Amino acid sequence: MLINCVAYQDGKKLSDIPVADISEYIILPNAFVWVALKDSSPAELAEMQFEFGLHELAVEDALVGHQRPKIEEYGDSLFVVMHTVEVNDDGLHVGEVGVFVGTTYVLSNRHGYEQSFNDVRTRCERESHHLKQGPAFVLYALMDEVVDRYFPVLETLENELWKIEEQMFATPACRTTLEQLYQLKRKCVQFKHAAGPLMEAVSKLDGGRVPYVVANSTEYFRDVHDHLHRINSGIDSIHEMVSTAIQVNLSLISLEDNNVNKRLAAWAAIFAVATGMVGIWGMNFEHMPELQWQYGYPLALSAVLSTCGYLFYRFRKSGWL
Amino acid sequence: MLINCVAYQDGKKLSDIPVADISEYIILPNAFVWVALKDSSPAELAEMQFEFGLHELAVEDALVGHQRPKIEEYGDSLFVVMHTVEVNDDGLHVGEVGVFVGTTYVLSNRHGYEQSFNDVRTRCERESHHLKQGPAFVLYALMDEVVDRYFPVLETLENELWKIEEQMFATPACRTTLEQLYQLKRKCVQFKHAAGPLMEAVSKLDGGRVPYVVANSTEYFRDVHDHLHRINSGIDSIHEMVSTAIQVNLSLISLEDNNVNKRLAAWAAIFAVATGMVGIWGMNFEHMPELQWQYGYPLALSAVLSTCGYLFYRFRKSGWL
Amino acid sequence: MLINCVAYQDGKKLSDIPVADISEYIILPNAFVWVALKDSSPAELAEMQFEFGLHELAVEDALVGHQRPKIEEYGDSLFVVMHTVEVNDDGLHVGEVGVFVGTTYVLSNRHGYEQSFNDVRTRCERESHHLKQGPAFVLYALMDEVVDRYFPVLETLENELWKIEEQMFATPACRTTLEQLYQLKRKCVQFKHAAGPLMEAVSKLDGGRVPYVVANSTEYFRDVHDHLHRINSGIDSIHEMVSTAIQVNLSLISLEDNNVNKRLAAWAAIFAVATGMVGIWGMNFEHMPELQWQYGYPLALSAVLSTCGYLFYRFRKSGWL
Amino acid sequence: MLINCVAYQDGKKLSDIPVADISEYIILPNAFVWVALKDSSPAELAEMQFEFGLHELAVEDALVGHQRPKIEEYGDSLFVVMHTVEVNDDGLHVGEVGVFVGTTYVLSNRHGYEQSFNDVRTRCERESHHLKQGPAFVLYALMDEVVDRYFPVLETLENELWKIEEQMFATPACRTTLEQLYQLKRKCVQFKHAAGPLMEAVSKLDGGRVPYVVANSTEYFRDVHDHLHRINSGIDSIHEMVSTAIQVNLSLISLEDNNVNKRLAAWAAIFAVATGMVGIWGMNFEHMPELQWQYGYPLALSAVLSTCGYLFYRFRKSGWL
Amino acid sequence: MLINCVAYQDGKKLSDIPVADISEYIILPNAFVWVALKDSSPAELAEMQFEFGLHELAVEDALVGHQRPKIEEYGDSLFVVMHTVEVNDDGLHVGEVGVFVGTTYVLSNRHGYEQSFNDVRTRCERESHHLKQGPAFVLYALMDEVVDRYFPVLETLENELWKIEEQMFATPACRTTLEQLYQLKRKCVQFKHAAGPLMEAVSKLDGGRVPYVVANSTEYFRDVHDHLHRINSGIDSIHEMVSTAIQVNLSLISLEDNNVNKRLAAWAAIFAVATGMVGIWGMNFEHMPELQWQYGYPLALSAVLSTCGYLFYRFRKSGWL
Repeated sequence: MLINCVAYQDGKKLSDIPVADISEYIILPNAFVWVALKDSSPAELAEMQFEFGLHELAVEDALVGHQRPKIEEYGDSLFVVMHTVEVNDDGLHVGEVGVFVGTTYVLSNRHGYEQSFNDVRTRCERESHHLKQGPAFVLYALMDEVVDRYFPVLETLENELWKIEEQMFATPACRTTLEQLYQLKRKCVQFKHAAGPLMEAVSKLDGGRVPYVVANSTEYFRDVHDHLHRINSGIDSIHEMVSTAIQVNLSLISLEDNNVNKRLAAWAAIFAVATGMVGIWGMNFEHMPELQWQYGYPLALSAVLSTCGYLFYRFRKSGWL
Repeated sequence: MLINCVAYQDGKKLSDIPVADISEYIILPNAFVWVALKDSSPAELAEMQFEFGLHELAVEDALVGHQRPKIEEYGDSLFVVMHTVEVNDDGLHVGEVGVFVGTTYVLSNRHGYEQSFNDVRTRCERESHHLKQGPAFVLYALMDEVVDRYFPVLETLENELWKIEEQMFATPACRTTLEQLYQLKRKCVQFKHAAGPLMEAVSKLDGGRVPYVVANSTEYFRDVHDHLHRINSGIDSIHEMVSTAIQVNLSLISLEDNNVNKRLAAWAAIFAVATGMVGIWGMNFEHMPELQWQYGYPLALSAVLSTCGYLFYRFRKSGWL
Repeated sequence: MLINCVAYQDGKKLSDIPVADISEYIILPNAFVWVALKDSSPAELAEMQFEFGLHELAVEDALVGHQRPKIEEYGDSLFVVMHTVEVNDDGLHVGEVGVFVGTTYVLSNRHGYEQSFNDVRTRCERESHHLKQGPAFVLYALMDEVVDRYFPVLETLENELWKIEEQMFATPACRTTLEQLYQLKRKCVQFKHAAGPLMEAVSKLDGGRVPYVVANSTEYFRDVHDHLHRINSGIDSIHEMVSTAIQVNLSLISLEDNNVNKRLAAWAAIFAVATGMVGIWGMNFEHMPELQWQYGYPLALSAVLSTCGYLFYRFRKSGWL
Repeated sequence: MLINCVAYQDGKKLSDIPVADISEYIILPNAFVWVALKDSSPAELAEMQFEFGLHELAVEDALVGHQRPKIEEYGDSLFVVMHTVEVNDDGLHVGEVGVFVGTTYVLSNRHGYEQSFNDVRTRCERESHHLKQGPAFVLYALMDEVVDRYFPVLETLENELWKIEEQMFATPACRTTLEQLYQLKRKCVQFKHAAGPLMEAVSKLDGGRVPYVVANSTEYFRDVHDHLHRINSGIDSIHEMVSTAIQVNLSLISLEDNNVNKRLAAWAAIFAVATGMVGIWGMNFEHMPELQWQYGYPLALSAVLSTCGYLFYRFRKSGWL
Repeated sequence: MLINCVAYQDGKKLSDIPVADISEYIILPNAFVWVALKDSSPAELAEMQFEFGLHELAVEDALVGHQRPKIEEYGDSLFVVMHTVEVNDDGLHVGEVGVFVGTTYVLSNRHGYEQSFNDVRTRCERESHHLKQGPAFVLYALMDEVVDRYFPVLETLENELWKIEEQMFATPACRTTLEQLYQLKRKCVQFKHAAGPLMEAVSKLDGGRVPYVVANSTEYFRDVHDHLHRINSGIDSIHEMVSTAIQVNLSLISLEDNNVNKRLAAWAAIFAVATGMVGIWGMNFEHMPELQWQYGYPLALSAVLSTCGYLFYRFRKSGWL
């Protein structure tokens, strides 16, 4: 689906243009066309391929989807794949944004991602002194937006970890904690798959041999790279703490088990003593003088109770009860 | 066993040719011969070695089999070893495809792998504008096919993990889950041994000093490399989740143990109390007035029952029962 | 908030100057201006940006805060971000120090960090032969101070580990130990996020292509790098020992559990024997001659006691009690 | 001990020669001398050092032994250390083979390794077209042999793992399994110490700046490197599976424990119920009408039995028994 | 404290000289001065700094101590820091040796290390053909000595591991084993901190751009590097085996626990049966014919005993007792 198709010259918007006129605009000096697609059909992509002369393999990748985040050079154009990440009820939802960048065009194409990038366009049009730099700046603005949207996701995961930790040390261990830890780990792995390769890829736009089309904007991409670095080390921290939490949680469970066993042992001992004692006076020997005593029964009962009480006191003191 | 032996010129099929005529065709301009073998005998390989002038060490490797996936340069020809991977009942079945590529020939040779590569040939013959690029494109097409066949395997493993996870959190722990996790880990390790070294090897065909014979097709091999990257990070994810699952499963087992112990403790306490109480009235003291009461017996019984009931209620409330 | 704004020439302090006069001083030969800000407002930063011609992206980073430690080159100026680390009651408090360094100015700006760097300024003014080297030396002095303040933090963590270890092997396992280990791990991860990237960044100032502005001071930065190396390997050691401690602690818990179980088993056996024995003489058979014996009762009691005593002795010998 | 000392020219054996005549042969065109020593004495090595002009440090290393596998260049000669590995009853037996290679000589010297390398010599003499390449080919042949002898060791370890796995999932956990896993891990570590550094070292003979003496044989050494790569990744796989097996085994033990606990709980409950019930009718109340019933006793017994039977049925159904 | 101060020329000792005369000797052709200090005071170091023109930062490092092992170039002199390691009762004692090396001097300075390096001096003076190479050879000799003294430490740790392993598999698990494993891990970490960075540092003296002052002795430093490689991989092995041992030990503890639980279950069952049976005949029903039998009592007793005996036999057979 075509979202926008706008021509720009010298950092200023010329006008919304029909796709068919693209070729007339991209030959103007300092002009470029910025097209935004969403869940594009093969036909749309084919049209774009024709208009902009996109490389066959890049178009194929964009059609098939499920690419890793990457930045590929085809001659002097770039094909960038980024993953969008949203938190929903049962995990992370990962969408895809493909961006084709040439010297005279930017074509963005998102798949399975509802949020639009209109604010990026608005911001770019406002900062026309930057937009003068052409498609490279647009690419930067799109990347910056995608990456900036990673931060709330990271925060959500951090909060989740925070809650699990609190619950882990405050309440007895339960299956839910374990399942949450497992799901958090899974989300970290998913998130890392979005942010990790992108960081790697972006590092190629900053330093070393930089592709021609972004050569004048390396400082901007270094900034994006830096943000990705923070995202990634944030994920790594959560990752590591989750692993530790799983281990610590196992220890907590064992500790609880230990406590249960101690109580079990203590109560078993107390009742075994009582049962043993009353059993004694239940024996049928003829010559058991205490059985005839006037106060034999209450004495026996109090003997049993005081023995049990003493044991109870001992166990409590040694922390078993 | 010889499967096909076909000569091509300018991207078009000339004809099926007998092995003996190979040398006449490979001297035609822009022509090359594409031979497909299966479980080749030493004699067949020796013949091929003679026709194409293959390097002794490469031929030896192809004969012995059990090579790691690799790409080796011998002068200006390449020897490529790839592993095919199939899921069967008790693990992964790994086969081997060796490809010799020179400027005028492609010789593929598969071992222990039933599925043919005829569709690759069909596709290549259809896309004659690509086939013009010669043996390099054939190599790409073969690699692409082998790697594309990795994706369903990856999916199978992902589904397996998925099922184990569900079962792990839904039902009590059992030996089967553990054995499945162990086998899944084993499959990951096996799969990684196929896909990991191949990725490494392919990266040499894309960027840096590229072997002469594939110099004009690096973009294609970058695509293969990218797919292998996805496969490998997919395997790594499963790998990591399996390790976590093993740890979490241990915790689940301990937790269950904990619950069993709690129930054991609770029931033991309830019955110990009952036994102790009835033991009291089983004592033989002469002066136990309640024994003579008219309703002593039902009173005693209800005392025992209400005590046990109260304990039951307490344990239930504190989650032990 | 402006802390200081001082002009220096040939390593000597000229005078405290108002911000508005900065531009007059930085054109003097061998002169530079050193400004210290604290929790600067956007307006203050904007003024500084105007006076020193700071790069827009660097200023934005300084405003937003929450940057990773890094050293970035903008033309021939540097933007350095360092983290300050303080230990407080519930974890580590991390602040931020941003330093802009050009050939004629140093601008430091700290966020969320109360301790001042006045002693750095005092030391620099005292060592005027060093201060002659200009802004690079000031940068070194600031870095050296920040890094030197890491050492007491490292020591605190080492002491914490030390205490946990002692307690772990000396007293029975408890939740507190586990929570402390977990928190220590968290602190390590936090600390590492401050010290790790800084080390990486500083290594760029020593060896290889060194930024122009610090070119004559690489030996100093190598020293800082070396200190950071020590800090980092110190953190890594604690990290590793914490992981081991968590594992060992789990074993200690299991061991304790084992002991409790043994005791439980032993006492259960002793009382079960006693109960069984007294139960025998509580049977109502008519022909049980020992019941009529004069000393049947004391004999029975001593039989029970001596059996239990023997069991007790056996269990004690085998270490179960 | 001197095993052989043979002179070769143009790939053909000239004759067995006494050590003293070495210097006369190594000056012939295209000739070289191949000496094999076993557990050489200092005197023998000193003689060789004199004849071939070996480097002092290399000779010292050969004398002292216990070197890591390595390849060192001394001027235009090489000193190669390889480890031989044999499986015996209580672990791996590691021997050492040192090879000195110059343009006119090969001197091999094995320590603590009984198997001879005579078949290598036989093979080399048979393939005289290869032997023409001189000492480099001999070095290759020796390395190839040492590395080929690693494969059966790898297989033995794989089989060991296989057996442990089978036993682990088929029978209840026991100390033996754990000890075997531990020993297997130890063997992996030992084996890795032989094969890992050698792979690293051999990679220097293939690609990059290759030592002069082997410059014409890099393809052969690439082959050795490849074999070592397979060995090493084989060891890594075992390594990894052993670690997983240890973890899984712990889970299996816990699971078994869990089952034992469940059974314990179930039986305890059944007998506690029975004991409690018979205790009731053992009470001495005067008014317990069922005691006078004609069939009170069998009724009581069957009440007890059916209650226990019902419990048994319930526990069996819920999988506790 | 000054230990020695000796001047050498052409590899021969000239004489012991007072510190004040150093400057006269170091201008002689092919001469150098070798000074050994121990726990040097700031004043001594200042004197040396003046005599040899040492770099301020290096001197500061030597004064402060607690450096990581490192090799730093200052102009054409080197500053080397090595750690000495000694085993004592409660861990490793780590000392420090700092060596300043210039073209005309060697200054060694040890801290917290009692053993002298006099034998190094003796050996160097004996091998005057080597000593001719000047300060570089002295540096090599000192390094070689420090590293050689690592080997017995490594052996001690290996023996410790060995003992722990034996004890672990031979006797029941106990706290001591765990504490020993933990301490061994700690020692490995400490040792690694001494040997690891030194290896890294030494690798700069062998291959690549080598500092001028040691340029003619790279082969010697490669030898030291090689020894350090062995030390480090030895430590790594112990490290890894300790981690495995901790895991295996946990399994052994669990296994023991399992056995205890089984025994507990078995004995509990046996006694519960006995108690239940004797309880039956303790019931007060009027019509229990067996109570009147002449041999009822012995029959009952033997019924109980044989039931218990049968259970005992069953449990023993199934390995629970």
